[in-house]
Amino acid sequence: MNERTKAVIILSGGLDSTTCMGLAQAEDRELFPITFNYGQRHVIELECAKKVAAYYGVVERLKLVELPFLKDIGGSALTDETIEVPRDELQTDRIPVTYVPGRNLLFLSLAGAYAETIGATELWIGVNALDYSGYPDCRPEFIASMETVLAQALKMGVEGKPVVIRAPLIHWTKAEIIKHGLVVNVPYELTTSCYVGKEQPCGHCDSCLLRMKGFEMAGMIDPLLLS
Amino acid sequence: MNERTKAVIILSGGLDSTTCMGLAQAEDRELFPITFNYGQRHVIELECAKKVAAYYGVVERLKLVELPFLKDIGGSALTDETIEVPRDELQTDRIPVTYVPGRNLLFLSLAGAYAETIGATELWIGVNALDYSGYPDCRPEFIASMETVLAQALKMGVEGKPVVIRAPLIHWTKAEIIKHGLVVNVPYELTTSCYVGKEQPCGHCDSCLLRMKGFEMAGMIDPLLLS
Repeated sequence: MNERTKAVIILSGGLDSTTCMGLAQAEDRELFPITFNYGQRHVIELECAKKVAAYYGVVERLKLVELPFLKDIGGSALTDETIEVPRDELQTDRIPVTYVPGRNLLFLSLAGAYAETIGATELWIGVNALDYSGYPDCRPEFIASMETVLAQALKMGVEGKPVVIRAPLIHWTKAEIIKHGLVVNVPYELTTSCYVGKEQPCGHCDSCLLRMKGFEMAGMIDPLLLS
Repeated sequence: MNERTKAVIILSGGLDSTTCMGLAQAEDRELFPITFNYGQRHVIELECAKKVAAYYGVVERLKLVELPFLKDIGGSALTDETIEVPRDELQTDRIPVTYVPGRNLLFLSLAGAYAETIGATELWIGVNALDYSGYPDCRPEFIASMETVLAQALKMGVEGKPVVIRAPLIHWTKAEIIKHGLVVNVPYELTTSCYVGKEQPCGHCDSCLLRMKGFEMAGMIDPLLLS
């Protein structure tokens, strides 16, 4: 009998990472979600991560990592209250102020260390390089380098079983992400995307704009707007 | 007038990282030491890091990062009290139980994010692949991959100013490290190396054995043994 593959899923409680949960479950992975409290403005997403983990029956297993250092060093509108989240400007020609220095690098490093200790051979992350905010750590070349450095850093890599990074959303548009997610019953009503972090989406930040565009292009209605 | 180069120095308070402080100072770097509380058995090293930072006149600038996650996930004799630190066995044919999953990957990732926010262009780390314990994340190939992933992940890399990792000790024996350090007046009396973490070195763990061998081969007396 084959054992199920253990997969650590980086779960923010947002649309993309929740889609990863659905896709990983559809591939019969054993789900080990991990989520990060890094002093983000939209800390409400941690509640969503819990609800999503509960939906997939793994809420007891949800690993919460406290990472106050990212807020401590600042340098981002998401961790520094004095930097405003831009409204109604979606451009990808420069890196926006919502960029958090080293965020995915840290998330994948922590998730990689965790994967090794539980014997997981896959890390799933919902990065996306198409309908995205221009963050450097969402690009395919970053993911490729990350896989290499994990293979070099970790015992499992040296022993010939390097952890694999799965980033299934990376080349999809937001609309394609949503369509693929709905096929596997991703509970988008439990997710949050807004950077401002209130109960209702602001509808004006990068992340809200991308989500709205995605549902519109998919010809679907965002369940968040129905509640 | 040229500005001095800002350098983030990963400072554990041990022999190697303190040597890095001395070498960086000798190159007239502006020193930004960073140290990590990861639930290590030898947390006493944080006190040493403070003393070393004070010696170099930068104690107010010493950045302490709380990283309880590494203890949380365990998997190492240094973070899990139920795994004993081996005594009197120094072998490099396999990775020892004192290996901490992802440690240098995390340290360099956190230090890289920090470097970006303060405008530092160098990260110094005292890894050493010769007289070492066989940790994968001390090898040159890991450092090379790490430099690549930092260039991909961080804004400064994308903008054509990737952070440089300086690992001057990497190909030196422990004796060579000590000799180079003494030339630039590294205060070895302020450092600690022992994994067990008592006031006096145990003299039996990997780290004590490597240190003793280093001073012996350098024909020097370890100042810790004089106190």
